[in-house]
Amino acid sequence: MANETMKFTRLEEMGQLARKAETQLAQLSNQQRNDGLAAMADALVANTDAILAANQQDLTNATDLKASFVDRLTLTADRINDMAEGMRQVAQLPDPIGSVDKMWKNEAGLMIGKQRVPLGVIGIIFEARPNVTADASALSYKSGNAVMLRGGKEAIQTNIAISDVLRKALKQLGVDENAVQLVHDTSHEVANEMMALTGYLDVLIPRGGRGLIQRVVSTAKVPVIETGAGNCHIYVDQYAELQMAVDITVNAKVQRPSVCNAAEKLVIHSAVADEYLPVIAAALADQGVQLRGDERACAIVPSMVPATAADWDEEYNDLIMAVKVVDSEDEAIAHINAHNTKHSEAIITDNYQNGQRFLQQIDAACVYINASTRFTDGFEFGFGAEIGISTQKLHARGPMGLHELTSTKYIIYGDGQVRK
Amino acid sequence: MANETMKFTRLEEMGQLARKAETQLAQLSNQQRNDGLAAMADALVANTDAILAANQQDLTNATDLKASFVDRLTLTADRINDMAEGMRQVAQLPDPIGSVDKMWKNEAGLMIGKQRVPLGVIGIIFEARPNVTADASALSYKSGNAVMLRGGKEAIQTNIAISDVLRKALKQLGVDENAVQLVHDTSHEVANEMMALTGYLDVLIPRGGRGLIQRVVSTAKVPVIETGAGNCHIYVDQYAELQMAVDITVNAKVQRPSVCNAAEKLVIHSAVADEYLPVIAAALADQGVQLRGDERACAIVPSMVPATAADWDEEYNDLIMAVKVVDSEDEAIAHINAHNTKHSEAIITDNYQNGQRFLQQIDAACVYINASTRFTDGFEFGFGAEIGISTQKLHARGPMGLHELTSTKYIIYGDGQVRK
Repeated sequence: MANETMKFTRLEEMGQLARKAETQLAQLSNQQRNDGLAAMADALVANTDAILAANQQDLTNATDLKASFVDRLTLTADRINDMAEGMRQVAQLPDPIGSVDKMWKNEAGLMIGKQRVPLGVIGIIFEARPNVTADASALSYKSGNAVMLRGGKEAIQTNIAISDVLRKALKQLGVDENAVQLVHDTSHEVANEMMALTGYLDVLIPRGGRGLIQRVVSTAKVPVIETGAGNCHIYVDQYAELQMAVDITVNAKVQRPSVCNAAEKLVIHSAVADEYLPVIAAALADQGVQLRGDERACAIVPSMVPATAADWDEEYNDLIMAVKVVDSEDEAIAHINAHNTKHSEAIITDNYQNGQRFLQQIDAACVYINASTRFTDGFEFGFGAEIGISTQKLHARGPMGLHELTSTKYIIYGDGQVRK
Repeated sequence: MANETMKFTRLEEMGQLARKAETQLAQLSNQQRNDGLAAMADALVANTDAILAANQQDLTNATDLKASFVDRLTLTADRINDMAEGMRQVAQLPDPIGSVDKMWKNEAGLMIGKQRVPLGVIGIIFEARPNVTADASALSYKSGNAVMLRGGKEAIQTNIAISDVLRKALKQLGVDENAVQLVHDTSHEVANEMMALTGYLDVLIPRGGRGLIQRVVSTAKVPVIETGAGNCHIYVDQYAELQMAVDITVNAKVQRPSVCNAAEKLVIHSAVADEYLPVIAAALADQGVQLRGDERACAIVPSMVPATAADWDEEYNDLIMAVKVVDSEDEAIAHINAHNTKHSEAIITDNYQNGQRFLQQIDAACVYINASTRFTDGFEFGFGAEIGISTQKLHARGPMGLHELTSTKYIIYGDGQVRK
């Protein structure tokens, strides 16, 4: 056991094992990959007691952690069942691998096809949610990728238990168990080493709070897909319907305030602010939202706290919303583009041109007319899964499902062509 | 002028100017972008004398450089015309921006469209070819991206002259000239600073030799698209036609040996090696190719130089080819996957299953049946342009044209939807 632990702190060796597993994985059929997912799901349920015992160790050690943190860390038999059910649902999704997106004949007569292939080896760095171990393993496996997981130290016993169960299930099927590997050493040094593991990791996806993501982005040598930060805006245009503005603003703010697609800012046109803002503010206050207004907003709704300059860039992830009054859609767009995190933005309007202009000019992964920003989600988009929400422009932007865990290769059919 | 130079060594300010230009660029119509390209092309030709004078300064300073290097650095009126013609051809290409790749209705009734948008700001780090300044500016501008260029110090006067001409042409059209910016300070410190310019550069594309690319990959914090390295193989299967094997091997090796899609290795099945290898070797020798064989290859063609272990990983970019004899397709595939740079690989075979297996199991950007690897090229693929050939799996793989310089955003049409 000591030797095993030693072995798994050696990241380069893990990288070599992952590359070896990748080669086998790339050749598995969709049915074989689905069988693996079913076996892993069954094994999770069958080993509920062992996983809960490991989780109990982590919880015993978690004495000085916040209640919300402990909640994310805590597993129950139901939660383990949910993880297994999630794996089975991933198995039901269409095969993301092998399809040829397009094929054409070039001037030399070559048939050139662009085929979907796995990315290779995916690194995931995450915090305290042990369900990420199962979720990320399922999505990686379904898409033919090997995965290297590094979770927070607070969940290490649980993550070891879960990953051991998944690996054993794969091994029993005759699949290379290194398709799923967990980094057992949770030190920062080893995390930094993992972020520099070019040559073995094709991409690194951090999952967690802003601090983790920023640390990975600024440290990693491996290509990173930046996820998560969401300073999202609702812009209530002068041509907005009042009731729709109320419903969408309240939904975007309070339906689940802790997540990245929740709205943090309300921008409202001065032509309707006097009439609409008191109604919207009252509806938000009813839900316990603290409002922070610019000078004009505070003049209309005096109960608002005056906003500071820092408010416009802050992601509260809480029942707080800052409000700005603008005199034109242009001013709204300029404000949003200057302060948003390129995640999700919405306009409420009945004016065709204003809606189209907002869609075109706002720089964000997801831009909405007359809908809540809370829809930015792989499941809501119909992808059937989500590994995160990319706020960068390279490779993937917006909700990432199985498709975003793939790459392509050109397959080219010739009959003796040489280049002239 | 001194102030201007000072200003343009300040990378962060350049980044801010690029972001500002990006906002304007994203709103230009295809016709406006094409007008800009035409104006830049005309300006290059109109300023031929000034550009040649600057080039002469660089050449005067280039006393201790290799002849091939000086050749790449040297401009003539014809070469400037070619640059201008290249810009005009880019203008003819279809608009890569604005199209909606797909649009669907989700369960909540939202219409979700995935629209092509510019990446934003593209950084290019390159060596001595001043035509990169014009080429990269044209491709970036056509795709609605601002570009920040950093060329080698040997070409700095030429690059300043070209970029000044391009910027002035844009300014005269009323376009933000910071769509094209050149880093005037060619020190390594400033190059390193540019590679760390996250927040301002959306992607960094190195163009040049292996040393440059490796330095960028290992130094950059900005996401890099790795290009160029090509240790490409031709595998002559036991079911290959001899004449096709000769023609393709010779073409792939000698048609332009200095480029990344030229073949460096010949792998041949032992069942045909005795008959085929002497013929292929003679054809290659006729073209001045030095052959380096493994033990079995040397036994068949004794004039071959014995290959060393290092040969299998080397990219010669020269009239040299190493030859390995294998006993099965599996052995060929394992050898190629162990030593290739994931660029371009070809099998010569008349056997259906062997061809399909090779396509599926080889891990490379481009995998060919019965064609020369020299076709891996944006123009040959029909993209009408090429910014490089990606050998990584994230974002872009294989020849990169205008499409690869774009990202997407989701545009979402609702009618009041809120999340339940």
